[in-house]
Amino acid sequence: MSDQQPKNPHDLPDASGIPIGILGGTGDQGKGLARRFALAGHRVTIGSRKADRAQAAADDLIAGDPDAGLRVSGAENPVAAGESDVVIVAVPWEGHKATLESLRDELAGKIVVDCVNPLGFEKGKGAFALPVEEGSAAEQAAAVLPDSRVVAAFHHVSAKLLLDPAVGEMELDVLVLGGDREATDLVQALAGRIPGMRGVYGGRLHNAGQVEAFTANLISMNRRYKAHAGLRITDV
Amino acid sequence: MSDQQPKNPHDLPDASGIPIGILGGTGDQGKGLARRFALAGHRVTIGSRKADRAQAAADDLIAGDPDAGLRVSGAENPVAAGESDVVIVAVPWEGHKATLESLRDELAGKIVVDCVNPLGFEKGKGAFALPVEEGSAAEQAAAVLPDSRVVAAFHHVSAKLLLDPAVGEMELDVLVLGGDREATDLVQALAGRIPGMRGVYGGRLHNAGQVEAFTANLISMNRRYKAHAGLRITDV
Repeated sequence: MSDQQPKNPHDLPDASGIPIGILGGTGDQGKGLARRFALAGHRVTIGSRKADRAQAAADDLIAGDPDAGLRVSGAENPVAAGESDVVIVAVPWEGHKATLESLRDELAGKIVVDCVNPLGFEKGKGAFALPVEEGSAAEQAAAVLPDSRVVAAFHHVSAKLLLDPAVGEMELDVLVLGGDREATDLVQALAGRIPGMRGVYGGRLHNAGQVEAFTANLISMNRRYKAHAGLRITDV
Repeated sequence: MSDQQPKNPHDLPDASGIPIGILGGTGDQGKGLARRFALAGHRVTIGSRKADRAQAAADDLIAGDPDAGLRVSGAENPVAAGESDVVIVAVPWEGHKATLESLRDELAGKIVVDCVNPLGFEKGKGAFALPVEEGSAAEQAAAVLPDSRVVAAFHHVSAKLLLDPAVGEMELDVLVLGGDREATDLVQALAGRIPGMRGVYGGRLHNAGQVEAFTANLISMNRRYKAHAGLRITDV
C-alpha cells in the first residue's frame, strides 16, 4: 500500500452472508451474539463441548423468535470451528487456552474473534482484571493459534441486552483490535450488522489487555448506576 | 449509609468556586486543564519545578483569552499543592513517584487527582502501556500519599482540544475512579464544570490501570481515523 492513498478507515467490506461459528455459544455472551447475528441474517453455528447442549441453545433461540426464520444450529466445538470462516471465541476464561489448543487445526486460516475477558470477582472488591502471562486473552489466542488470524472484539457487549427481546438496538461501539487490517475491517463490518452497534478499530493486539480489563470498570458502573453501560467513541 | 437509601449517583455536589492546583501544569495536559478550569471560573495555580516557568504558562493562558478575566497564576509545585484543596497531578510519568514523594506533607488531607498515563512509544509498535509495580499511576500515588484522598481522572482528555480556542465544548465523559465517594463525587462535579464534559464514576483504584492504559488505544484510533477520539458511556 506504500505508494497508494491510505485506505479510508470507514470504508468496510460487505459482511452480509458470512457464516459465523461461536465457540462457547451456550454461555450468555456467546448465545446473545448468536441471537443478534442470526437476526441480522447470518447462518450461525453454536459450538459447545456437547453437541446436544449446543443444539438445545440453538433451539431455544429459534423458539424465542419463531417468525424470524433464524438459521442457527448447534454442534461440537470442532465442527462449529471447522465450518465457519469467522469463529467467535466466547468460552470461559478458565478453559480458554486448552480449548483453543485443541482446535488449532480446525481454526487454521480462519478469522478468530476473541471476546473473552479474564476477570476475577471478590466480595467487597468487585470485578478486577486477572494477570495473563501473554498480556491478554487475545494475545494468548494468537500465541496458541499461529496459523489463525486473531482479532479481539465484542468485549463490552452486555449479554443481558443481547438476549433481551425488548432491546431492538444495541447502543454501543465495539472496539476491534488486531494487526491484520483485512481481518479487523471484516470484524468491524460484522459488528455493524447488529442494529445500533458500530465496529471501531481500537489498536493492535498488544493493546488488547486493557480493553478486556475495562469490562471490570463497566461492571462497577453498572452497579453504581443500575445500568448496562457501554462505550461510544467520539470524533470517529 | 447502611440503613439509608443509596445515594443517587447523579446527585453531585456544587464544585463551583473550588480552587485547583495543577502539578506539572506547564505540560500540554496540565496547561490545557488549567485553561478550561479557569474559563469555568475556577482559581487555578499552575505548579512547576520552577516558579518562573509556571508563571510563564499562566501568563500565556491569560494572554490567550485576554477578555475572560482568567484567575491563573504560577508557582513552584509545593506552593501549588499547598494552597489548593484539589490538586491535579499532570507530571510526566518518569517523575511521578519522586515528585509526589517530595510533596507528601503539602498534599496531606487534599484530594489528589491523578491523570498520568504510564505509556511507552516504539517505532512500528506505537503507544503501549508500561508495567507499573503498584498496578497503575493512581495506585502508586495512593501508596506514596497515604494521607491524601487519591482519585484517578482526566486520562483521556486530548491536550490539543483543551488548548484549542476553536473548541468550545469537550465532547467526552471523564472516568473518575476511587474508593472515597465524597472525593469521586466532587471530581465528577469538577469534570462537569467544563462544557461538554461529564464526570462518570468508573470504579475503584484497583481498576485504574486499564483506564490509564486505554489512552494507548485512543492514540491508535487517532492515528487510524485522523481524529481526537474520546469516550462516552451509554446508558448512564
